[in-house]
Amino acid sequence: MSVEKIHRVGIIMNGVTGRMGKNQHLLRSIIPIIHQGGISVSDEEIIMPDPILVGRNENKLKVLAAESGIDKWSTDLNGLLQDPKYSVYFDATMTNIRAANIEKAIRAGKNIYCEKPTAMNLEDALRIYNLAIERGVKHGVVQDKLWLPGIMKLKDLIDRGYFGRIFSVRGEFGYWVFEGDTVPSQRPSWNYKKAEGGGIIFDMLCHWQYLLENTFGRVKSLSCLGALHIDKRWDENGNEYQADAEDAAYSTFQIDGANGEIVAHFNSSWQVRVRRDDLLTIQVDGTEGSAVVGLRECWIQPYGATPKPIWNPDIPSSINHFDNWIQVPEQRNYDNAFKVQWELFLRHLVLDEPFQWGLQEGAKGVQFAEKGFESWSGRKWADIPKVI
Amino acid sequence: MSVEKIHRVGIIMNGVTGRMGKNQHLLRSIIPIIHQGGISVSDEEIIMPDPILVGRNENKLKVLAAESGIDKWSTDLNGLLQDPKYSVYFDATMTNIRAANIEKAIRAGKNIYCEKPTAMNLEDALRIYNLAIERGVKHGVVQDKLWLPGIMKLKDLIDRGYFGRIFSVRGEFGYWVFEGDTVPSQRPSWNYKKAEGGGIIFDMLCHWQYLLENTFGRVKSLSCLGALHIDKRWDENGNEYQADAEDAAYSTFQIDGANGEIVAHFNSSWQVRVRRDDLLTIQVDGTEGSAVVGLRECWIQPYGATPKPIWNPDIPSSINHFDNWIQVPEQRNYDNAFKVQWELFLRHLVLDEPFQWGLQEGAKGVQFAEKGFESWSGRKWADIPKVI
Amino acid sequence: MSVEKIHRVGIIMNGVTGRMGKNQHLLRSIIPIIHQGGISVSDEEIIMPDPILVGRNENKLKVLAAESGIDKWSTDLNGLLQDPKYSVYFDATMTNIRAANIEKAIRAGKNIYCEKPTAMNLEDALRIYNLAIERGVKHGVVQDKLWLPGIMKLKDLIDRGYFGRIFSVRGEFGYWVFEGDTVPSQRPSWNYKKAEGGGIIFDMLCHWQYLLENTFGRVKSLSCLGALHIDKRWDENGNEYQADAEDAAYSTFQIDGANGEIVAHFNSSWQVRVRRDDLLTIQVDGTEGSAVVGLRECWIQPYGATPKPIWNPDIPSSINHFDNWIQVPEQRNYDNAFKVQWELFLRHLVLDEPFQWGLQEGAKGVQFAEKGFESWSGRKWADIPKVI
Amino acid sequence: MSVEKIHRVGIIMNGVTGRMGKNQHLLRSIIPIIHQGGISVSDEEIIMPDPILVGRNENKLKVLAAESGIDKWSTDLNGLLQDPKYSVYFDATMTNIRAANIEKAIRAGKNIYCEKPTAMNLEDALRIYNLAIERGVKHGVVQDKLWLPGIMKLKDLIDRGYFGRIFSVRGEFGYWVFEGDTVPSQRPSWNYKKAEGGGIIFDMLCHWQYLLENTFGRVKSLSCLGALHIDKRWDENGNEYQADAEDAAYSTFQIDGANGEIVAHFNSSWQVRVRRDDLLTIQVDGTEGSAVVGLRECWIQPYGATPKPIWNPDIPSSINHFDNWIQVPEQRNYDNAFKVQWELFLRHLVLDEPFQWGLQEGAKGVQFAEKGFESWSGRKWADIPKVI
Repeated sequence: MSVEKIHRVGIIMNGVTGRMGKNQHLLRSIIPIIHQGGISVSDEEIIMPDPILVGRNENKLKVLAAESGIDKWSTDLNGLLQDPKYSVYFDATMTNIRAANIEKAIRAGKNIYCEKPTAMNLEDALRIYNLAIERGVKHGVVQDKLWLPGIMKLKDLIDRGYFGRIFSVRGEFGYWVFEGDTVPSQRPSWNYKKAEGGGIIFDMLCHWQYLLENTFGRVKSLSCLGALHIDKRWDENGNEYQADAEDAAYSTFQIDGANGEIVAHFNSSWQVRVRRDDLLTIQVDGTEGSAVVGLRECWIQPYGATPKPIWNPDIPSSINHFDNWIQVPEQRNYDNAFKVQWELFLRHLVLDEPFQWGLQEGAKGVQFAEKGFESWSGRKWADIPKVI
Repeated sequence: MSVEKIHRVGIIMNGVTGRMGKNQHLLRSIIPIIHQGGISVSDEEIIMPDPILVGRNENKLKVLAAESGIDKWSTDLNGLLQDPKYSVYFDATMTNIRAANIEKAIRAGKNIYCEKPTAMNLEDALRIYNLAIERGVKHGVVQDKLWLPGIMKLKDLIDRGYFGRIFSVRGEFGYWVFEGDTVPSQRPSWNYKKAEGGGIIFDMLCHWQYLLENTFGRVKSLSCLGALHIDKRWDENGNEYQADAEDAAYSTFQIDGANGEIVAHFNSSWQVRVRRDDLLTIQVDGTEGSAVVGLRECWIQPYGATPKPIWNPDIPSSINHFDNWIQVPEQRNYDNAFKVQWELFLRHLVLDEPFQWGLQEGAKGVQFAEKGFESWSGRKWADIPKVI
Repeated sequence: MSVEKIHRVGIIMNGVTGRMGKNQHLLRSIIPIIHQGGISVSDEEIIMPDPILVGRNENKLKVLAAESGIDKWSTDLNGLLQDPKYSVYFDATMTNIRAANIEKAIRAGKNIYCEKPTAMNLEDALRIYNLAIERGVKHGVVQDKLWLPGIMKLKDLIDRGYFGRIFSVRGEFGYWVFEGDTVPSQRPSWNYKKAEGGGIIFDMLCHWQYLLENTFGRVKSLSCLGALHIDKRWDENGNEYQADAEDAAYSTFQIDGANGEIVAHFNSSWQVRVRRDDLLTIQVDGTEGSAVVGLRECWIQPYGATPKPIWNPDIPSSINHFDNWIQVPEQRNYDNAFKVQWELFLRHLVLDEPFQWGLQEGAKGVQFAEKGFESWSGRKWADIPKVI
Repeated sequence: MSVEKIHRVGIIMNGVTGRMGKNQHLLRSIIPIIHQGGISVSDEEIIMPDPILVGRNENKLKVLAAESGIDKWSTDLNGLLQDPKYSVYFDATMTNIRAANIEKAIRAGKNIYCEKPTAMNLEDALRIYNLAIERGVKHGVVQDKLWLPGIMKLKDLIDRGYFGRIFSVRGEFGYWVFEGDTVPSQRPSWNYKKAEGGGIIFDMLCHWQYLLENTFGRVKSLSCLGALHIDKRWDENGNEYQADAEDAAYSTFQIDGANGEIVAHFNSSWQVRVRRDDLLTIQVDGTEGSAVVGLRECWIQPYGATPKPIWNPDIPSSINHFDNWIQVPEQRNYDNAFKVQWELFLRHLVLDEPFQWGLQEGAKGVQFAEKGFESWSGRKWADIPKVI
């Protein structure tokens, strides 16, 4: 293939020494895009990301450079923001410094791509959105779950009209995060500390916001109960600490669906043992059929396959309730969800293709988490006004 | 066997031509007790129920008498209440006439055993309880789910200390009740009509009340959202009707557990397709282990068998999340749950053995349903004050 | 990665031309540590082993050097002991010369790491321990089974309190060692000759000593019966010989457990066919649950999953006794057990981190074997006095 | 079939209201023998048992008479012993009254068939044996395990020479007997009380005696360690009690085998969870092959199928150690073991066919248990002198 035109996009990748930044964004998105020869726009044209790794710890950056094969790295963010070689600022740093970083980058004229939550509160989230509009930079926020194979299969079913009228959605997210005393914990300790931006509401309600709104309709109101189920934990160095950020959230949503109200209930927990199809499962019930969706797989039960159970606890059930479902086959190829969104953003950047997942959506996610806390403390439903 | 002493207990069985009264109380409880030679109290002593079938429809009663082999039947409830041969009044009639029937029976000096809900509102439920106390009659309310094999296995695990500290309970109840247009419906139409005492909140929250309180601890407050997911149905005669009673309830409970607060979330729905172990499944999570309970079976995952999942949607999960659970074997024999409670009640009656499931518990169940409606309409949490 | 500080540790590896020394210590421990870039102590600091291969057979050493990529080798042990480049003397030679070698090395000021048994008798084992203390050198003895994945899973379960009170342990070790006439034998002939330090008591009781004491508690007394089940064998050259060292040991132990006495029974045999989960299986029974542990895997049966069998040989059992167990998942990563202990020893050496598996423990292992012989010949229980 | 001659054998069945007496001897042995039309000796001749049920509780006897269809019963043992219609006295009463009952019956001229242990001590056991010889009555002691299908398959293999030279036997007996607090216990409480003749040594060593001696050879000496693993239990009425009889025994035996010494090790426990083929499994290792035997099934691994395992805990074992065994097919029909021995005894009685399992064998069983206690308390091996 002879490529006539290469759009090189310089990307300042800030925070790639962290878990998500490194694994999902660098190793599973940007590097594979480079290794596959860029994003092929046409036979003659490609978009090629050109990243520089940014962080605070020089040693970690060196190791990451060696591991990833990206030899450019820097600890001087401010310097880079002045460097015209880089047109995109990507941020996967800690939440409590993200909005300030993004603001600086917008003011330096950079286009923005960043992790969620975009800020620690709605006000900041809206400010950086408005600033981006004012300065005319392009912007995107990670909403990876939309490109999970399971969610894409669900979207296909919805688009096809499989469900009839959808009226109910059940989400179960979570797994057991070890406390760290006997078995080492598999999540960083800051997740369980309020002062460091931890807590499952802030982390997961942002996800449910874009997932629900992109898939089912606008969420009108929510009720949320947080809980701290396990408050004694051991950190990365084996030291005991007091967890003070909620590790579970029980939330219910009222959604303006395409054909009437939809109730969605989601349990999110880092202290739950998993007896279901996947770490995240979403059951959708409609008049004509139901589906249960995991990260990659999807099972459906249409009306004609719906059994008619008899309630009789005297004898073992004659129905195995897992048998009457059929697995949706792979009807398309699925790439890494983060990488898919990166490619869409880079096309938006270079080719000006539409891209609906910008900082306005990030702000809605932050609003969602705020409303979750409002409902929890007020012990009542919280309506969600349109802010944008 | 030469039995020296037979305690014959005359029972007025009102409402046994209905579904529950006939199947669970007459055919699976009283008849088997008679066929097994009564309740053996000791080698020389038995308790033998002596029922008379009561209803409004003479023809139905004749058929039932033939089917059950119980040849005594009557449509004259008032006359029977004056007959000293019968010391127990049992009620499985429709909810909206139950409290009045019970009141009459108490005033006639009968001991009471009845279905739930005991009344249409808390006031009535408390009135018949107080009347029973005042008149010194014995009383019991059906709380059958406590003797489901699955729930008894759960109780054994709790008593054994298996869970460590319990902090979270998830209940999923329901199945697809057909609308009646193509496939005939498997539930009576009155369930879907407000005016006839229908609705899932009134039906199921009574069950969750005694189930939660007998198993985990007192429920302090609840949040409940009802929904009418399907409002067009076809009745027993194939006529279309407008359903107006809620067919789903999404409820969350805060419980004073033995070792701290427990959050319980229960979804109840007659419009859900079932992809789980049973029509009712309850997952209990504790610090040392979890359990998932169905009507008869129970699966457990202790700490040492808890997997450590890695969130990586790029590849199919290496863990089948159903594999790391082990089924609780049959460690005792399980009889029909309704029959077990009947036997306990008859022993209470004759031998004065303790029996904690009286009209006061029925009143708490009614209060629970009322609080469910209060929370729904008020869009906020409802605290549950102690009434007895 | 720019490492600021490298601690190079020169190690005289004596006996690496033997089976254990080569496979476990050189190829699966020291070489992988080198290949992984040493032991990372912090972002700026590593420990790097620097071995020299020592043996009697020059040809074997050359071959091993080529195979391992370690180009330093020597047959001159005495010379090396004077070389200040090497701070550690490692010994995996034959047992009957080990104590003398170690003594020489201690006198030369070397730190010691060695295989077990540390000596042919308790007196020698204590002498080299006391000498190490006197000369102030550091010392470690291989107790690899403590880091077998199966044993580590067991330890996690114990630490978690899974078992309740442990009261009973059953060990089965062994497999069929072919005699060598038809199928060639898979173990060297010296194992079956008393004069060459053979016999299963000396070999395996050392293991049971540290395994039991590190896992369950101090062993107070033991009863041991040795047996020579097969006395005619064929050696490496196909020559028939008379085996005179016991090839099986049936031993029972009384242990001071954390919550009362524990009885442990271990069968060790080189003449047993294996119908069990692994070559070494250990069943642990406690009040709240049991576990069966193999080299890598662990299966558990908690109280709630314990079946209630009925003894009825008239019909096939309705219980498959392997079904009510659940496999412990991989809750952490497991490295080669020998390598794990090497890394701990090297950290102890360089960083002075605690290391409890020194020559005193080796002496206890030798004492254990001696007590085994004492019990066997005396046909009675042998108490095990504290020697250190 | 026209039977010319019916030998009717009157049997006083004492103790058949107990668990073993009722289930194994009456319902599964004598009744089936009657229902099959007696024991067919030839086309013209049968032996027909004619039992009378004896016990202390009249009500229990009436119920048992109704259940079994044997309408003769009595509480007057002394009267029956004088009745010449009954030539056999069978005893399945409690151990502490058995020897006295047998003695009375012998003095009344009855032939004897009885459960084990035959007495509470060797002296009594020998006395009733000598008395039987003196009075010339015939006698048999239940040794049911010899006719378990599994043990008969093993015996067939031995007789065939399958094993080559047998050198080692491993027995594992037991299962989890529930304490009775949460799950009800499946064994009577007297088993756990010394004063009532409880304890596993007295119960099981009798079995191991005849099993080992009939199958492998004379037991020369034994070492036995008893243990009381669980001392708090709940009895049939739900009352807590202190268990004081040992519930586990770890015993080793030296046997004069046909081709040299055999070591046998047996663990017996009522507090063990079962991960093996059956409630009783016996592994036999010989030079040419091994077998593992359960109550009904038997698996063999001959020399040619013996795998050559490699000890490498770094990787999962490539051998599934259950795969290299083959199950022995049903090469004959197996009847209930108790019934088989009853038929042999009745033929011995009527036809004078040889019967080697008399009171002398019962005495050896009692001696075995006594030696078990002697070894336990003396903490040394106990030799077993020939007493008969």
